Amino acid sequence: MSSLQNDAFPDPAKGEPFLLTPGPLTTALSVKEAMLRDWGSWDGDFRAMSKSVCDQLLGLAGDPDDAYVCVPMQGSGSYCVEAMLGTFVPRDGKVLVLANGAYGLRAAETMRYLGRAYTLIDKGDYMPPRGAEVAEALAADPAITHVIVCHCETSSGILNPVAEISEATYAAGRKLLIDSMSAFGAIDLDVTQIRYEAMVSSANKCIEGVPGFGFAIARKAELEGCKGNSHSLVLDLYAQWTNFVKSGQWRYTPPTHVVAAFLEALRLHAIEGGVAGRGARYTKNRDVMVAGMRALGFETLLKDRWLSPIIVTFFCPADPKFVFTEFYERMKDKGFIIYPGKLTVVDSFRVGCIGWMDAAIMARVVKAAAEALAEMGVASAAPPAAALAERAKLAA
Amino acid sequence: MSSLQNDAFPDPAKGEPFLLTPGPLTTALSVKEAMLRDWGSWDGDFRAMSKSVCDQLLGLAGDPDDAYVCVPMQGSGSYCVEAMLGTFVPRDGKVLVLANGAYGLRAAETMRYLGRAYTLIDKGDYMPPRGAEVAEALAADPAITHVIVCHCETSSGILNPVAEISEATYAAGRKLLIDSMSAFGAIDLDVTQIRYEAMVSSANKCIEGVPGFGFAIARKAELEGCKGNSHSLVLDLYAQWTNFVKSGQWRYTPPTHVVAAFLEALRLHAIEGGVAGRGARYTKNRDVMVAGMRALGFETLLKDRWLSPIIVTFFCPADPKFVFTEFYERMKDKGFIIYPGKLTVVDSFRVGCIGWMDAAIMARVVKAAAEALAEMGVASAAPPAAALAERAKLAA
Ligand SMILES: Cc1ncc(COP(=O)(O)O)c(C=O)c1O
Ligand SMILES: Cc1ncc(COP(=O)(O)O)c(C=O)c1O
Repeated sequence: MSSLQNDAFPDPAKGEPFLLTPGPLTTALSVKEAMLRDWGSWDGDFRAMSKSVCDQLLGLAGDPDDAYVCVPMQGSGSYCVEAMLGTFVPRDGKVLVLANGAYGLRAAETMRYLGRAYTLIDKGDYMPPRGAEVAEALAADPAITHVIVCHCETSSGILNPVAEISEATYAAGRKLLIDSMSAFGAIDLDVTQIRYEAMVSSANKCIEGVPGFGFAIARKAELEGCKGNSHSLVLDLYAQWTNFVKSGQWRYTPPTHVVAAFLEALRLHAIEGGVAGRGARYTKNRDVMVAGMRALGFETLLKDRWLSPIIVTFFCPADPKFVFTEFYERMKDKGFIIYPGKLTVVDSFRVGCIGWMDAAIMARVVKAAAEALAEMGVASAAPPAAALAERAKLAA
Repeated sequence: MSSLQNDAFPDPAKGEPFLLTPGPLTTALSVKEAMLRDWGSWDGDFRAMSKSVCDQLLGLAGDPDDAYVCVPMQGSGSYCVEAMLGTFVPRDGKVLVLANGAYGLRAAETMRYLGRAYTLIDKGDYMPPRGAEVAEALAADPAITHVIVCHCETSSGILNPVAEISEATYAAGRKLLIDSMSAFGAIDLDVTQIRYEAMVSSANKCIEGVPGFGFAIARKAELEGCKGNSHSLVLDLYAQWTNFVKSGQWRYTPPTHVVAAFLEALRLHAIEGGVAGRGARYTKNRDVMVAGMRALGFETLLKDRWLSPIIVTFFCPADPKFVFTEFYERMKDKGFIIYPGKLTVVDSFRVGCIGWMDAAIMARVVKAAAEALAEMGVASAAPPAAALAERAKLAA
């Protein structure tokens, strides 16, 4: 059962393709229509809107006893990751960065900019960091105060085992920070289930808003101790939070229209059944799309156990007639924007499952891929042997 | 002559007030309508949109010989000020911050967060920093490498004398950075007229877009030397710029809808006659509004010579029946959102002249103020003697 109204879908025939990209993504028309008026950022009406956004996000994270707070932050998701690291990691702290893709590596790069200590476990393109190796790394280095991990590492689409990483982290008396950019809102990150100090996500991922801000959900008692940590005025989550408490306002001009759109996105999210309902639709999207692509001969980078319902990496076919840029343009002409891959070892591309799309749309994606292959004269979508050897590295 | 179409104005009767605030502000309906579709940020169509934004902004700044570049940056205007300071001021540099209001002081606060050397000339609530005192300060402290000043200090609405400050700065062999947030696009800041290394502004001021990003216009030869200066990954204007050069893309997810709206805003800006046309409308807006308010007995903080066409500070009437919050709500009920003042010495409020409004609307603002005063039983809008004494400090 899908709660989406098909008549509100973008019409590729009118030049608006579906975005099979992990944010910005295709949003409901009513989300965009919420941007058709201007709001004064100082005004009480807008303050109430900001409060409603925060209250609803906290609801999605669980938080039964008001122990957590939500702090929105202008900018893109990377801004929120940097704000989280700058605010929660004391200047003399040290971070264990768990990386298995571009976004984990970006967290390490952020630490380098901040000039604060960190150590990196780099698992390459997609191999998941496991609880046991986190425990080992923490035992080996008592200076480490924090661990940061991506929930869904969007570069490959892998869903990292955050529960076991959280357990290992707190068993060693350290603190966890989570980049749940592409997962929050569709995959549970309930504070009563998984322990963490703070997580960040953004408006234009699984809540299906438009891009322009992100937010942190943080344990209040922890945030209260973060005054003076931040390396940046604008990215200081502590100062942003205290200002909300004091005045109900963002410290600096908020992206008012984007916030209004996000409120409508939250309304649709609730109608769909919250995190569970949203996650179910994305899972169905993925299942239909993956099954169809496999039937065409495409192979996924990851075995089923590690596939997220967010985005899926496919190997490029071995057939020399397959040229990604041409495939991209043909898919776009048929109304679907896909995403280049981020693997360093073999060629790949990605197809997102998130956004205002349902299984019927995903079936059309598969059909478009079949047509594109035929037009290009690609006889088989099977990947090169090197790709399959790569995949064999990761246990099911 | 106004190029605005009245039928596209927001209709306060339908619950959408005019924003007489210095951004977010009232925008044209077509600007908001440009947000009614989703864009893939990686896609060629969007890259072309970003390039068009930058090219048009450079056009507004003059730049006859391609010596300048435009670098957009996600976030609010304050993010751009911080990005400019972090990118252009070397870690061993020292900044002379010229402050005559909240935004100048915020630049100083930013320097404090950055942990880089600065010295502050704080002129209080509105007194303008003059060329002669800049020259004196620079002569006294050879360690100073950069000067930063607000073009229009939006706290009071004063138009700072950037030309004489630029001359004093370069005469002393130092470099100028300008926060032209609320002025660029309506007041000339042509690189052939006023020398500076970089200036920043944002989408939701005089170009009349919606909030969500800002931009720097910088001398290319200077920016080329800025690698490694930034304290922040996301706010590194050098890295953002080199990425645009390399791939035509923003480094991190751009606020796609806000960018689309801005392109439409730039189109309307050009139709209106560019900086000169936009500035002329705002000047007319101000003149009509100030004359009307003065006729009601209100007094401006600033004498005419210092009034910007951006925003005007009025003293609150001395009459004890005048309560700002009540005045605010009454004005809002009549369709106009005004702004509280930022003076520390006497009570004040502010009325913006920028946004999708013309002189006829400003006449309605005055009428609404007259009605609000009458409803509140305020007999005279004359300010207290202390306010007039305050104003006398600044020469005409
Ligand atoms: C896991 C993860 N972290 C960080 C980011 C960065 O977000 P943004 O591009 O909004 O800066 C993304 C974006 O897709 C992401 O998926
Ligand atoms: C001169 C000046 N500088 C900086 C800012 C800060 O901009 P923002 O609120 O978008 O961060 C403003 C906002 O009005 C401004 O007028």
